[in-house]
Amino acid sequence: MSRAFIAALSAMALIPFAAVAGDLRSDANAVFKPVTAAAAAKAVKNNELTPAKIELGKELFFDPRISSSQLISCNSCHNLSLGGVDAGSTSIGHGWQKGPRRAPTVLNAVFNAAQFWDGRSEDLKAQAKGPVQAGVEMNNTPSNVEATLNSIPAYVASFQKAFPGDNKPASFDNFAKAIEAFEATLVTPNSRLDKFLAGDEAALDATQKKGLRLFIDKGCSGCHDGVNAGGGNYAQFGAVEKPSAAILPEADKGRFAVTKSPADVFSFRVAPLRNVALRAPYFHTGQVWTLEEAVEVMAKSQLGVQLAPDETTAIVAFLGALTGDQPKVDYPVLPARANATPKPQQELATKHAH
Amino acid sequence: MSRAFIAALSAMALIPFAAVAGDLRSDANAVFKPVTAAAAAKAVKNNELTPAKIELGKELFFDPRISSSQLISCNSCHNLSLGGVDAGSTSIGHGWQKGPRRAPTVLNAVFNAAQFWDGRSEDLKAQAKGPVQAGVEMNNTPSNVEATLNSIPAYVASFQKAFPGDNKPASFDNFAKAIEAFEATLVTPNSRLDKFLAGDEAALDATQKKGLRLFIDKGCSGCHDGVNAGGGNYAQFGAVEKPSAAILPEADKGRFAVTKSPADVFSFRVAPLRNVALRAPYFHTGQVWTLEEAVEVMAKSQLGVQLAPDETTAIVAFLGALTGDQPKVDYPVLPARANATPKPQQELATKHAH
Repeated sequence: MSRAFIAALSAMALIPFAAVAGDLRSDANAVFKPVTAAAAAKAVKNNELTPAKIELGKELFFDPRISSSQLISCNSCHNLSLGGVDAGSTSIGHGWQKGPRRAPTVLNAVFNAAQFWDGRSEDLKAQAKGPVQAGVEMNNTPSNVEATLNSIPAYVASFQKAFPGDNKPASFDNFAKAIEAFEATLVTPNSRLDKFLAGDEAALDATQKKGLRLFIDKGCSGCHDGVNAGGGNYAQFGAVEKPSAAILPEADKGRFAVTKSPADVFSFRVAPLRNVALRAPYFHTGQVWTLEEAVEVMAKSQLGVQLAPDETTAIVAFLGALTGDQPKVDYPVLPARANATPKPQQELATKHAH
Repeated sequence: MSRAFIAALSAMALIPFAAVAGDLRSDANAVFKPVTAAAAAKAVKNNELTPAKIELGKELFFDPRISSSQLISCNSCHNLSLGGVDAGSTSIGHGWQKGPRRAPTVLNAVFNAAQFWDGRSEDLKAQAKGPVQAGVEMNNTPSNVEATLNSIPAYVASFQKAFPGDNKPASFDNFAKAIEAFEATLVTPNSRLDKFLAGDEAALDATQKKGLRLFIDKGCSGCHDGVNAGGGNYAQFGAVEKPSAAILPEADKGRFAVTKSPADVFSFRVAPLRNVALRAPYFHTGQVWTLEEAVEVMAKSQLGVQLAPDETTAIVAFLGALTGDQPKVDYPVLPARANATPKPQQELATKHAH
């Protein structure tokens, strides 16, 4: 083979075929997959989804009595009114303690390969047990959660319905499974991107199409791909150039804490970008308050690219096209506490290990 | 007139006519009025109720960005999942500060003669401005609320729709009016008591009927009457016998702080009893965790009566019949923050006066 031919082949290998063909929709379909309720249900493992379990999970998700103070629910930090997150920057929990990282969104979380910024939980039922017990979040214990649930007859009945045949239905394990079942319904289909993927040329305007083209050609889609436009793998934050210490502080080594592998220092689960326009502030530290700045930080730190202002504008416009239909939720009426229900513990002393 | 005749007349004056007649429903109808949406709408003054205003009010009620921390919404303490209150005892607000009194329920609050435990606000739109500015609650300022609302285009549009022709629609005053409009929809019709009042004999069981009879005959209904079974007037807590200092601490003089009248020391707005079974813990201090104890405390402190156990049981059963249909609420999807939206202030320093 001639040198020129090899060089030509190499150059082509760097450019996806579809880009050569110039078909934006084909390129986009090679990168992204649409959000659907069916795909979400399929993503749940070892947890049969039933209407009774989903409804129970919704009640538990909104019930502040799952926290020791009885003031903080899952929805406090993963607020379904606000794109599944809180106001930021990092979450405030028991005793107004500030947590170490920003709340990840619960919307479409079922599509992520693993949960938490460092991927330390394999699925949503494993994840659900974490914040309940974290001293800076809900500050509760599995035994107190079980005592609370079992003290309320209507909850016991709902657990029996959701977990028929189980001899201890209102357990901490089943609590987590019910939460997972509800969270698997929290998906946001019908975004403009998904309509475009399905063939609706007009779903994206010219600026959004330019942004999508840039998102693919600049390399963003190398990590932010799949159903969730991210969430499927890990990447070192600052791979090309480290962002400021406010955005990426030395103390938080990311996935290294999970794997202890030096290769994972500052590695985080790639942020899923569905509904990202609803979810400022950005990054695990929540220190970047505009999508424009977040895009510029990513381009520089991950790709070594300085975007022109019109490029940033276009990519931000494209990211707005990832906002889907937000879940419709009837706010649940929760069963009242009973005389035997444990009282809230709102004092600031940290709990004892046991 | 003979002495005997006068004595007989006097005795009859102490016993309502219907009680003599022994018709429990007539007696009950002389004391209570049913909860209806129409009555609620009629109770609102100087604030036209429109669907646009009610919908906006719902969004504002659930929006934590009304607080300076952007973490505390009206619903945090007046939780519509939990009978319109929080877990108790007294509410936790900005910086995990503990407020001085228990959150009163927002359900049926429109029927109260005045708002707050001491009646210091004449209506719900006046009330709505209080917690927003209280340092121990939302710790915000009217100007920051207005800056937040006006920074979010979708909110500005909703205010324009709700307050057509207003040249500054997204104002703090209109914020309060929208909240009032939504809260006026938070009523709980169709309780067993209301069905009984309307003629359904089977709506109350034998124990509940016994409780209703006792509630009237012992004198409870002397204060706890009207639509809301309370909320219409004021009474001195401990009129006959002072309860413990935990329940009625010396420091909180109740309505005295509003009127400065010595007659109002320890006077509070009579607690409305609709849905009371959903709302433990009880009293302004939230120190009584069971309805049984609350009934006994009331009987002793207000009426000088020591109830027999079966009387307490019956009255508690009757109070359970005051639970109505809880409002059906679609959890709102709130408009996203904009780049110009003020950031949350979550630090613990108290705000400066200005």
